[in-house]
Amino acid sequence: MLEIKDRDGMARITIFEVNDKKVETPVLMPVINPLKSDLGLEIMKKYFDLKIIITNSYIIYKNQQLKDTILQDGIHKVLGYNGIIMTDSGAFQQHQYGEIDVSYDEIFSFQLKAGVDLPTVLDLFSEPYDDYDTVLNKIKITEERTKRARELAGDRIIVAPVQGGVYPDLRRIAAESQSQPENYLAIGGVVPLMESYKFGTLADVILSVKETADPSLPVHLFGAGHPIMFAMAAFLGVDFFDSSSYIKYAYEHKFMYIDGTRSLEELDYLPCVCPICTAYTPKELKKLTEKELVEKIALHNLYVSFKEIELVKQNIKEGTLWELVTMRAKAHPNFMDIFNVIRQHREVMEYYEPVDRRSFSLSGYESYYHPAITRSLDRVLKNTKKYIECKDKEIAMTKSAPSWGGGLKYENRLCNTPLGIIPSELLWSYPFNAIIYSEKYFDRYEIPFWIGTFNKMVTGMAKGSSPPVEWEYRRCGAILDYQFGEGASALLSSRDTSFIYSKNTGRLRMIKKENKHILSLRNSGFFNLKIDGAILMNKILEKDRYRVTVSDDAVDFVSKGYNLFAKFVVSADKNIHVGDEVIVIDGSNSVIACGTSFMTPIEMQKFKRGICVKIREGIFKNRNTTEIV
Amino acid sequence: MLEIKDRDGMARITIFEVNDKKVETPVLMPVINPLKSDLGLEIMKKYFDLKIIITNSYIIYKNQQLKDTILQDGIHKVLGYNGIIMTDSGAFQQHQYGEIDVSYDEIFSFQLKAGVDLPTVLDLFSEPYDDYDTVLNKIKITEERTKRARELAGDRIIVAPVQGGVYPDLRRIAAESQSQPENYLAIGGVVPLMESYKFGTLADVILSVKETADPSLPVHLFGAGHPIMFAMAAFLGVDFFDSSSYIKYAYEHKFMYIDGTRSLEELDYLPCVCPICTAYTPKELKKLTEKELVEKIALHNLYVSFKEIELVKQNIKEGTLWELVTMRAKAHPNFMDIFNVIRQHREVMEYYEPVDRRSFSLSGYESYYHPAITRSLDRVLKNTKKYIECKDKEIAMTKSAPSWGGGLKYENRLCNTPLGIIPSELLWSYPFNAIIYSEKYFDRYEIPFWIGTFNKMVTGMAKGSSPPVEWEYRRCGAILDYQFGEGASALLSSRDTSFIYSKNTGRLRMIKKENKHILSLRNSGFFNLKIDGAILMNKILEKDRYRVTVSDDAVDFVSKGYNLFAKFVVSADKNIHVGDEVIVIDGSNSVIACGTSFMTPIEMQKFKRGICVKIREGIFKNRNTTEIV
Repeated sequence: MLEIKDRDGMARITIFEVNDKKVETPVLMPVINPLKSDLGLEIMKKYFDLKIIITNSYIIYKNQQLKDTILQDGIHKVLGYNGIIMTDSGAFQQHQYGEIDVSYDEIFSFQLKAGVDLPTVLDLFSEPYDDYDTVLNKIKITEERTKRARELAGDRIIVAPVQGGVYPDLRRIAAESQSQPENYLAIGGVVPLMESYKFGTLADVILSVKETADPSLPVHLFGAGHPIMFAMAAFLGVDFFDSSSYIKYAYEHKFMYIDGTRSLEELDYLPCVCPICTAYTPKELKKLTEKELVEKIALHNLYVSFKEIELVKQNIKEGTLWELVTMRAKAHPNFMDIFNVIRQHREVMEYYEPVDRRSFSLSGYESYYHPAITRSLDRVLKNTKKYIECKDKEIAMTKSAPSWGGGLKYENRLCNTPLGIIPSELLWSYPFNAIIYSEKYFDRYEIPFWIGTFNKMVTGMAKGSSPPVEWEYRRCGAILDYQFGEGASALLSSRDTSFIYSKNTGRLRMIKKENKHILSLRNSGFFNLKIDGAILMNKILEKDRYRVTVSDDAVDFVSKGYNLFAKFVVSADKNIHVGDEVIVIDGSNSVIACGTSFMTPIEMQKFKRGICVKIREGIFKNRNTTEIV
Repeated sequence: MLEIKDRDGMARITIFEVNDKKVETPVLMPVINPLKSDLGLEIMKKYFDLKIIITNSYIIYKNQQLKDTILQDGIHKVLGYNGIIMTDSGAFQQHQYGEIDVSYDEIFSFQLKAGVDLPTVLDLFSEPYDDYDTVLNKIKITEERTKRARELAGDRIIVAPVQGGVYPDLRRIAAESQSQPENYLAIGGVVPLMESYKFGTLADVILSVKETADPSLPVHLFGAGHPIMFAMAAFLGVDFFDSSSYIKYAYEHKFMYIDGTRSLEELDYLPCVCPICTAYTPKELKKLTEKELVEKIALHNLYVSFKEIELVKQNIKEGTLWELVTMRAKAHPNFMDIFNVIRQHREVMEYYEPVDRRSFSLSGYESYYHPAITRSLDRVLKNTKKYIECKDKEIAMTKSAPSWGGGLKYENRLCNTPLGIIPSELLWSYPFNAIIYSEKYFDRYEIPFWIGTFNKMVTGMAKGSSPPVEWEYRRCGAILDYQFGEGASALLSSRDTSFIYSKNTGRLRMIKKENKHILSLRNSGFFNLKIDGAILMNKILEKDRYRVTVSDDAVDFVSKGYNLFAKFVVSADKNIHVGDEVIVIDGSNSVIACGTSFMTPIEMQKFKRGICVKIREGIFKNRNTTEIV
């Protein structure tokens, strides 16, 4: 039901499909009140290209007349809307008003009969104040109800709520047990956290869910309707949002902004460029009738909300969502908690972090704990012993990596980068060559983080001692070990290696062996594998490392250089990250192709749709012959 | 020509008046090309409420026909625009194309004859690469030309460029010499800094100018047309911006955003809520004719730019511009340099910082160097000895100040606040009672700043020892010393003092002496002076301290409780800050009123318009009698 189109860390742009209707995520679905017609569906359809909406099955169910017509004509006809319709189940009403008088079987069956595209299981809302056992019990019951709902729904997609209160391990348990085929995961019980500005706890909840949830299933954050949340939630991997706030706030004359909320009374200006705020002044708005005013403010709230989603998607495509999140986090000090939470959930963040990015901005101390930074330093520090003794302990700050041509003057040096002390061999590789930062703002000697890596590095290198090797061999060897792990540098061991440089820039372009082109250098300073390089690398790298095994029925296809789709993957090395160079092998461990990974190993196993490895070269010379390269 | 309506630190909302035309600042004036009619004035007038525009006198001058009609009919008639018209002089053309073939007298006289509202002196553009002596020479010449222009212009307002390149002291010299009556100060030679993202240097330039410029004169930042700059520049005290970028960028199909620029080609979405971006998709825009496309993008750029100015003004009114700046600064790491520059220019920032704010957000390490924080800690540390020995060295973190009722349990304690160790006496005063922060994000023991104040405080207090005094006397005494400086606590020395508390909250409301109401407590935990308190305080505070002396012709007026206008001020204590309680005295040093300052001491001297002290009480019982209180 889900196919990844683009990604940035844990965030993703996907195409979600249900009943032959498609919607691009992340997406915000406005809540439609079937009884009120404030900002009715008609008006909304007039102003926005609505692909998905959500309404409440319980409210409909309680209205005998509406219930009957919907059961007769179907919900799409009655609402006059052909897009995707999701319904909530009444759990939130339970949370607000206590018990509700309908059984979970009954309300779920009603949603099925009504023809809802995304019917929701009536779950038990876990309150932030619920104790551990209460919550545990609630998720068990929700799990049973979900099983029962599955029986009723057959192979239709159903919305499986993931509760667990504020207990990370219970969120993990719930996410895992609800991760069944054709389940749409909806994180519930979080509205109270958002209402009390507990953004750190919210981030903790989302990350705990993502840690154990099946990555091929969609993730919805129930009740997250304020645009202030979107960038952060999408950054942590949320695909779906629903909003009733746009109208609730409008009733209170409140304008939503990406950095908070202001009531009309507080506004001396209308500091927003939307069609409403550019057409009116606060004075003019106050002259409108109550109904007109509510509609105008609701429209403003929707414009701001929908466009924030588009900005999030634009940033995912640019690979800069982190930068947007650091900006949004300034909206309220409590948002800064999420950076602390991100540090605690390092593993999952690191798991989804791509191998390289176009650039990385250091614009606050929190940047130092981004997986792009921590991973690279972990890799360097693991190998300190391999780097030779240095002529000097330090050279002048290198704001950006020197050109490869000028590289030699850095031979045998320790380089003082904004990330710490780096051996010069890696100065041309990501992230060390791609950091954008402000030297004036960061007094590195004030940063505990920097001092830490500095000491580890220096002590590590002092102990180290490797035989003197030609600089270019050592530099490229260091990059290979940094990229593929210890041992990969053996690829260059023999002396029949030639380095080809760019005439203009003097930058290394490719490496040949016995006149076969085996490696090309990416802008990010990692190597791309050519098929000949992959065949050699397959002999060097320990078993499984960076290997992806494909099922027999795909071997021929992939051997000819066609992209590898997830559904043909038998197994994949757990060390693979998005953007990694992988060696594609068949059941008998022989290389059939090489390419760049577009998925994490678990995604390769779980996804039924989409490309998981973008193949660069297959072993067959071209797609029409079966002649080996 | 300028009157302050609202303010937030160095930033201000003013009403600027020229030739009976008024405009509210900060304001952006779009550049109109008199020869091209791209996004002509007509279209712009149709979409925006334009109060001021800028065009180029040199371009007009070079076009014989246009020049003649303008000389004959006046520039307003020819352009068909009755608002304020400013003209540039050709200095920028000089910077771009070398020499220009018109004398400075000639081009300035032409602007006068054309009926321009704000004619600009033809200055010499100082380049970032110019050496010190070259720049010094250029500002001398510019100064002479300005004197000459003044002779030609009589008492009309003229635009006096402030050059000085990247040399802070030369900027100070230029700003001081150009600060003549009826001069409109325009900071020049900064476009190259913005083009090269040298935001730190730019901030350094602006602050250097503000340090010596006459605060009653308007300040324009030449060529700052990108909305990414507005919040920061306004925060540093800039009133006027001009933009030709909106159309220049449009020609290159570039969309301006508050956090940067994107070209149409880079945009998969239109992540903006403006009337253009909500009406089109990128695909649809690409189908337009070149002319239509340029116009649409220019409109987007103007919407975003004008509305960013409104957001800046909204934040000035809310006193939260700093928070907006910290958000905007995330747009590019180079922006973070400005926080370093702010630290270097502490004095001028502190000079304009109000006594208290509704709240202060700690949302990044840079917050620790905001004058609101540094000032309060300086004041506390200066008085450490006065605070009594403590029972404990530390008590649990106090997230927010305890209620006055519960205050006593803090007696004799050191309190561990996010700003450092604070004596409990001041726990209820700004900023200690108004900090919004995230405990999880700030590991205070990692913050050198915090450790610094901690140590100073503890050592200071260890040395200290004050006689045991009743808690409430000591607490209020400490606040008085904190607010008015050492010695002010003597106001409570005698025992005939009574403390009146709120029935509901238990919070201190007022202090009486001999049954006379002398002090009230503000929400921010500072005291408001009542006239009886002012009379007593006048005897206690050393000469001049917190005194404002008024000219004889205003004594009667102010004694009756009417607000004090700047033009009646004879002298004002240099220690006064905006929001301070001041004692208003006549020539013979006797108290005639008390109130709250709305200006800095220098502003009180320089401004000809506006209120400088909001009077709370005059010595006359009421405005109709002359009976003393």
